[in-house]
Amino acid sequence: MPTIDLNCDLGEGYGAWTMGDDRAMLGIVTSANIACGFHAGDPSIMAETARLAGEKGVRIGAHPGFEDRAGFGRRIIRGLSAREVEGLVAYQIGALQACAALSGQRVTHVKPHGALYNMAAVEEDLAVSIARAVKAVDPALLFVVPPLSAIERAGEAAGLHVAREAFADRTYEDDGTLTPRNVAGSVIHDPDAAAERVVRMVLEGAVHSRHGTRLPITADTVCVHGDTPTAVAMAATVRRALEAAGVTVRALA
Amino acid sequence: MPTIDLNCDLGEGYGAWTMGDDRAMLGIVTSANIACGFHAGDPSIMAETARLAGEKGVRIGAHPGFEDRAGFGRRIIRGLSAREVEGLVAYQIGALQACAALSGQRVTHVKPHGALYNMAAVEEDLAVSIARAVKAVDPALLFVVPPLSAIERAGEAAGLHVAREAFADRTYEDDGTLTPRNVAGSVIHDPDAAAERVVRMVLEGAVHSRHGTRLPITADTVCVHGDTPTAVAMAATVRRALEAAGVTVRALA
Amino acid sequence: MPTIDLNCDLGEGYGAWTMGDDRAMLGIVTSANIACGFHAGDPSIMAETARLAGEKGVRIGAHPGFEDRAGFGRRIIRGLSAREVEGLVAYQIGALQACAALSGQRVTHVKPHGALYNMAAVEEDLAVSIARAVKAVDPALLFVVPPLSAIERAGEAAGLHVAREAFADRTYEDDGTLTPRNVAGSVIHDPDAAAERVVRMVLEGAVHSRHGTRLPITADTVCVHGDTPTAVAMAATVRRALEAAGVTVRALA
Amino acid sequence: MPTIDLNCDLGEGYGAWTMGDDRAMLGIVTSANIACGFHAGDPSIMAETARLAGEKGVRIGAHPGFEDRAGFGRRIIRGLSAREVEGLVAYQIGALQACAALSGQRVTHVKPHGALYNMAAVEEDLAVSIARAVKAVDPALLFVVPPLSAIERAGEAAGLHVAREAFADRTYEDDGTLTPRNVAGSVIHDPDAAAERVVRMVLEGAVHSRHGTRLPITADTVCVHGDTPTAVAMAATVRRALEAAGVTVRALA
Repeated sequence: MPTIDLNCDLGEGYGAWTMGDDRAMLGIVTSANIACGFHAGDPSIMAETARLAGEKGVRIGAHPGFEDRAGFGRRIIRGLSAREVEGLVAYQIGALQACAALSGQRVTHVKPHGALYNMAAVEEDLAVSIARAVKAVDPALLFVVPPLSAIERAGEAAGLHVAREAFADRTYEDDGTLTPRNVAGSVIHDPDAAAERVVRMVLEGAVHSRHGTRLPITADTVCVHGDTPTAVAMAATVRRALEAAGVTVRALA
Repeated sequence: MPTIDLNCDLGEGYGAWTMGDDRAMLGIVTSANIACGFHAGDPSIMAETARLAGEKGVRIGAHPGFEDRAGFGRRIIRGLSAREVEGLVAYQIGALQACAALSGQRVTHVKPHGALYNMAAVEEDLAVSIARAVKAVDPALLFVVPPLSAIERAGEAAGLHVAREAFADRTYEDDGTLTPRNVAGSVIHDPDAAAERVVRMVLEGAVHSRHGTRLPITADTVCVHGDTPTAVAMAATVRRALEAAGVTVRALA
Repeated sequence: MPTIDLNCDLGEGYGAWTMGDDRAMLGIVTSANIACGFHAGDPSIMAETARLAGEKGVRIGAHPGFEDRAGFGRRIIRGLSAREVEGLVAYQIGALQACAALSGQRVTHVKPHGALYNMAAVEEDLAVSIARAVKAVDPALLFVVPPLSAIERAGEAAGLHVAREAFADRTYEDDGTLTPRNVAGSVIHDPDAAAERVVRMVLEGAVHSRHGTRLPITADTVCVHGDTPTAVAMAATVRRALEAAGVTVRALA
Repeated sequence: MPTIDLNCDLGEGYGAWTMGDDRAMLGIVTSANIACGFHAGDPSIMAETARLAGEKGVRIGAHPGFEDRAGFGRRIIRGLSAREVEGLVAYQIGALQACAALSGQRVTHVKPHGALYNMAAVEEDLAVSIARAVKAVDPALLFVVPPLSAIERAGEAAGLHVAREAFADRTYEDDGTLTPRNVAGSVIHDPDAAAERVVRMVLEGAVHSRHGTRLPITADTVCVHGDTPTAVAMAATVRRALEAAGVTVRALA
């Protein structure tokens, strides 16, 4: 029977500021990527999000980003040495491990955030440094990456367990890359359209590009976003559609 | 044969800024309290300091402080909830564990920094939250605390292994508390005077207050400072004097 | 004819995070206290909030706080020297002046935020340092302070124009101080009740304490909060009630 | 009689951390570019550096950088909107103006720092945003820029007074650009060699590239660095050589 993991970026508040409806999302997804304090999140939010995830049986992942609260980790930052990248990633994973330990939870995966994720998809050196940090902290951590990317290759070369990620609400180009966000129509806002695409990805192992080309895609986990007004409706629709199609939604082992 | 641990706060630079001569101090002390990025230190410095400590056979400890780079963690901050304190401490310990893992090192002790240390010496609630965080992250961590303090009691109540700390370069009041820094003569600048006091503490289990009263003091570890111009000379003199007096200087088990 | 200023803390988002409905509040109040980047706000939010305030004819004030984004400037912080307090306050005022200049606006008042406001109400040294900074930056700045406080006295001693502030949604003790927030009933949630109190304050120059004692109170400006779910309704009700009672709501000169 | 301004980046400490010997440098240079708290500096250091500069008769300039303490403002950061850049620059200038006002000093120039300076030398949009911010804050501010750059053009287009900067300790390529720092020999460490080059620049209006090509160069101000071990010796040698050659070293009007 086909199975899929649904993941979502959570714990993205900071201090007195909130973002998204984490409790609702934790009732829908099976894996939570928790911000680790560098682009969003703080120790209390991390501890509380991990505790809630544990209560709901949702797997916990570290979601390390650049040190960039002002830009929510979406700004490209250049000039970090390999050592600095390793430190950046290790620090954030360890911080979440310890915050999760406050409620007896364990971190089981890592997914880089924002610009760090996007840059590591195409930059070999950055990808290698990230993979090395994950491995040093805990080689059993599942490494969530975009398929056919530099960071997927780096994860495999490091001997990590790699999970390939697709997006519920993004269109693809003919070459299999995501359509850039600034292109009209690149983000899918209709929950039913997104749900239909996800079901097809899982059942057929393929997605159609925005020009209609059929692209083979192997997704171990599908990302639903948590920080938009319609996030909960979108995620719930995707999950219902998957289950209606006979797909088991469950966390990766 | 009498033994003592010598500890020092290290890794207190930040980004392009340096503080103290860590390499020299790591040739003298047996335990390094490494700043964890909230009042000083950053991921790269933490990873590098842990690596160097490992090379020299120096034990590694987390040195968590308030989130206060501007004040070097020395400012009193009030208004954190128990959950916030637990998160603050856990986060920093975990971050160092992971940065140390980059070079295969392990964190074996925790010593709070600055205002957090001083406040927890007398504030029961704060002390209990810190101890709870240490225990949740790793109950085998050695907990370095001032003797006869709220945080010593909290550590023992939590079932942690507690190590009592004395200071090489500070005078004591008749009631066993440290003379406040703003009192003239409260900080000892003469290496020989400091060394003589430390030797007496270890061999006799006592120290004389600045008014001449003999105070029984049980020290498992002695703190030498690393951030003053004469820090290396002071630490080296203390170590030589201890060894000349037949004391074995070694890290706590 | 009686007049009163209505002020509100605005621009309290940070990066991708928002707080309150600034546009709606700017349609109601006559003075905006804009966060200056230390406890909330950032350069873009400051510039945009000042621009919007200018469009609506709302006066612009600097709302400097402790360097404490994690605690939203509500944490008590001790250990700053007089020089550090002066720098802290001057820096934030100047930063807002320049951000406001981007749209041709001018800063006309200063009101300290959160813990800085509360501490300066009772701590003479802190109050004097704040007043000194305001005066050095621009002696024409209106200084918004709690009545009968150390900071009111410091402002007057410095020769600043002082505006006394009352709160629409807080109860008072018999001695004229605000009831602490942790006392049940200290925050008034009913817009009509708050509006009635404000009208009485302005027309009668008095307010009743929560024990029924009549307290003379001279308010030049009344603070309505902008960061609660009912903030806009509360502020609008207060303004309507004032106007219905024949009070002119306008900014201080 | 030929004249030249000597400028130096100062106030680059942060909190408990120091960098360079500002007092010594302020005895040599005629203009101080003061870090504004985003990549280095803090309100107290800014106020104190401005005060010292005023005492020595040294002109004060704002030295705004990216929000990047961890990377000292040297990391390339992409993704800021034009509004964000304008806010970033305005905020920092205003902050310094106010900190300088604490001792009655005035800010008379602006020079972007590090990656912001280097990127604006070649990126039109960034350059225009920076120039717009400077103009909005105070159109009389002198704008210090690299010659023949996008930011020089942006400053002139905005109607700002532009000062062209040369470097005492850097070599040039045949096309007039600075030799990248990672090229061996790109940084001149010999004070006499640097001094000789600066004298020639000022007297002949030219410099030789590292391949020997004579390049016409118009420098209104020469930058000497303050953060290296030999900074003071280098700056003093350059100044003495200029004076010996009959050049008047004085701040730009």
